[in-house]
Amino acid sequence: MGIEDQLRELKRGIVEIVSEEELVAKLKKGRPLKVKVGFDPTAPDIHLGHTVVLQKMRQFQDAGHEVICLIGDFTGMIGDPSGRSTTRPPLTRQEVLENAKTYQEQVKKILDPKRTTLAYNSQWMDNMVVSDFIKLTSVQTVARMLERDDFRKRYQQQHPISIHEFLYPFIQGYDSVALQADVELGGTDQIFNLLMGRDVQKAYGQEQQVVMTLPLLEGTDGVQKMSKSYNNYIGVDDPPADMFGKVMSISDELMWKYYELLSSRSLDEIHGLQDRVSQGALHPMEAKMDLAAEMVERFHGKRDADLARESFTRVFKEKALPEDMPEVDIRLDRPWICSVLKEASMVQSTSEAKRLVAQGAVSIDEQKVSDPELVLAPGAYIIKVGKRRFARVTIG
Amino acid sequence: MGIEDQLRELKRGIVEIVSEEELVAKLKKGRPLKVKVGFDPTAPDIHLGHTVVLQKMRQFQDAGHEVICLIGDFTGMIGDPSGRSTTRPPLTRQEVLENAKTYQEQVKKILDPKRTTLAYNSQWMDNMVVSDFIKLTSVQTVARMLERDDFRKRYQQQHPISIHEFLYPFIQGYDSVALQADVELGGTDQIFNLLMGRDVQKAYGQEQQVVMTLPLLEGTDGVQKMSKSYNNYIGVDDPPADMFGKVMSISDELMWKYYELLSSRSLDEIHGLQDRVSQGALHPMEAKMDLAAEMVERFHGKRDADLARESFTRVFKEKALPEDMPEVDIRLDRPWICSVLKEASMVQSTSEAKRLVAQGAVSIDEQKVSDPELVLAPGAYIIKVGKRRFARVTIG
Repeated sequence: MGIEDQLRELKRGIVEIVSEEELVAKLKKGRPLKVKVGFDPTAPDIHLGHTVVLQKMRQFQDAGHEVICLIGDFTGMIGDPSGRSTTRPPLTRQEVLENAKTYQEQVKKILDPKRTTLAYNSQWMDNMVVSDFIKLTSVQTVARMLERDDFRKRYQQQHPISIHEFLYPFIQGYDSVALQADVELGGTDQIFNLLMGRDVQKAYGQEQQVVMTLPLLEGTDGVQKMSKSYNNYIGVDDPPADMFGKVMSISDELMWKYYELLSSRSLDEIHGLQDRVSQGALHPMEAKMDLAAEMVERFHGKRDADLARESFTRVFKEKALPEDMPEVDIRLDRPWICSVLKEASMVQSTSEAKRLVAQGAVSIDEQKVSDPELVLAPGAYIIKVGKRRFARVTIG
Repeated sequence: MGIEDQLRELKRGIVEIVSEEELVAKLKKGRPLKVKVGFDPTAPDIHLGHTVVLQKMRQFQDAGHEVICLIGDFTGMIGDPSGRSTTRPPLTRQEVLENAKTYQEQVKKILDPKRTTLAYNSQWMDNMVVSDFIKLTSVQTVARMLERDDFRKRYQQQHPISIHEFLYPFIQGYDSVALQADVELGGTDQIFNLLMGRDVQKAYGQEQQVVMTLPLLEGTDGVQKMSKSYNNYIGVDDPPADMFGKVMSISDELMWKYYELLSSRSLDEIHGLQDRVSQGALHPMEAKMDLAAEMVERFHGKRDADLARESFTRVFKEKALPEDMPEVDIRLDRPWICSVLKEASMVQSTSEAKRLVAQGAVSIDEQKVSDPELVLAPGAYIIKVGKRRFARVTIG
């Protein structure tokens, strides 16, 4: 694969890259690059948001590079010694190994096992002496550390930051030295720690790693980042029908972001789909079912994906088309969604319509309407308000 | 020795004690307390300023307690890895041991060797694993660390503070845990690190050490703290005549501070001397010669002290009383030093006199005049201006 083509896929979906020139120079060397990604050993329960980085790793593998899943077991076994955070109890070595096994099970569904290495930072941190560790921490200043977003906020708000919290980024940075990483990937919220790897490598006389950040994937609500605590997540262990249905529930706009960040289709293929949808040659729901099927196939296999698709289509048709659904023909100069709802007698007023759209209670062809200013193109739609009001609306 | 009497001598010259109640409680246990003092292994070249703390250690020994000289060799061998401070090159183990030998030579002149232990913190720090060190640093917060005077100033002035500098106080604190220190002594500039020992001991489930700070001794100029860099120091290795002369050059006021902080005489004896001087029964120069002789005897022996005293007296008489010294009788309503100098024709004007006093060029009875507003009491004085102008002045 040529460097131009590699670069196009490798940069796909990337928020920040430090620096592109360095990445090009490394790619030009023609040898497989070592691509490092750190994993938190405390939370093996992963969702599609976590797989964004795995997908990027896979793209590196497809371009001939090696990826290293770095399990931060050394710090995981320390936990939070200040006892301030109850969410970080220290793990035993047994727990770390069990969690790592779970990771392995998950990541092998996305990564190429032949180009994947699993590493534990206890391998080098357990043997480091305190004097070398102190030298390591001389690489960075207090002021620079307090520029990190979360530290700055906590310091300004006079929330305590224990000194040991300042030390963890050095370990992440030193991991890059130990692994001789060429590239490190992470979420945008990891940028500080990723750049620390560059500083530490420089201090240790190594070529600096290229840092690439990936966006935080929004959950099914399209607003908050995907997270268990927001209950907007799609777990990689979700049963096939649930996974399929959750993907189908996202907005069309978010669908294209999911395609970019999660699909194995090339950018060219995705742009082809987008063109066909915008030309009206492909219904967005079809494109979304393809995405949903790809995700289910990835985590459950082809058979489960086919079954989920069939089942969804059948249920959707049954649920979406009640026998007594009224049919309405509407002619408006400007078919604004709220006017359409009023004309179709589905609401009393446009202000009620606006309120219902804001509550997420209005959908068109099973797609939630998020924009209260939406103007519909001419065509036939099945509009649903709340759980029970349906209408087949034709806009002339 | 009763606790009351012990306490009186132990508190002598102390600036701060945290806390007196805890010290009393510890003394009441009736067992020998472990009194810790840290020594910087980089500077074995000690002066009287350094011996203030040694004198306090001796007082503890005289009350039956044990002192521990803790050589900070672990950090000494790290030096300043950030390379920002050229004054802290890393030491080799050989250098540390040589410096420690020099310390031992010096301290045995003041301390009782039977109640003195020498300890090196590499004994426990070399074997500490990084994970335990990280736990140690969780004891303190960033905000608290930035309250330390020097850190606060550097942070505010945007001068870089490397993270490793935040780690050294934890080591000093942990040393107290390793030694199970009951008391730690240090200069007032050490208060933060001394209190850190209390925090760390508490976190490790130990009874907290009592912290006692000693003032920084002013040098022979009576203004700056004694330091090689101000050239106002009295080295413990200074030849007997130099040492004697340097002690004789300090002001009367400073002499009493030296007595309090450096002399082995009891407070009662010192108060007796002060009474006799203020009653005119003892010339201050005699009291100062006693102090100078005590210092020379301490570091060079009795014979050298006697010789230094004789020599000083002879030279002083020779130098102070040139044969051709004019005698002047002066009657002034207000015998202000500058008017006196003008009346005695030693200067052209009172403004010249003021300037010379400010330059430290005027002395009365071999005592430098520091106060340009000095008003002399009636009496006979030998006044000297510069190196050559002498007069025997009688003020009526």
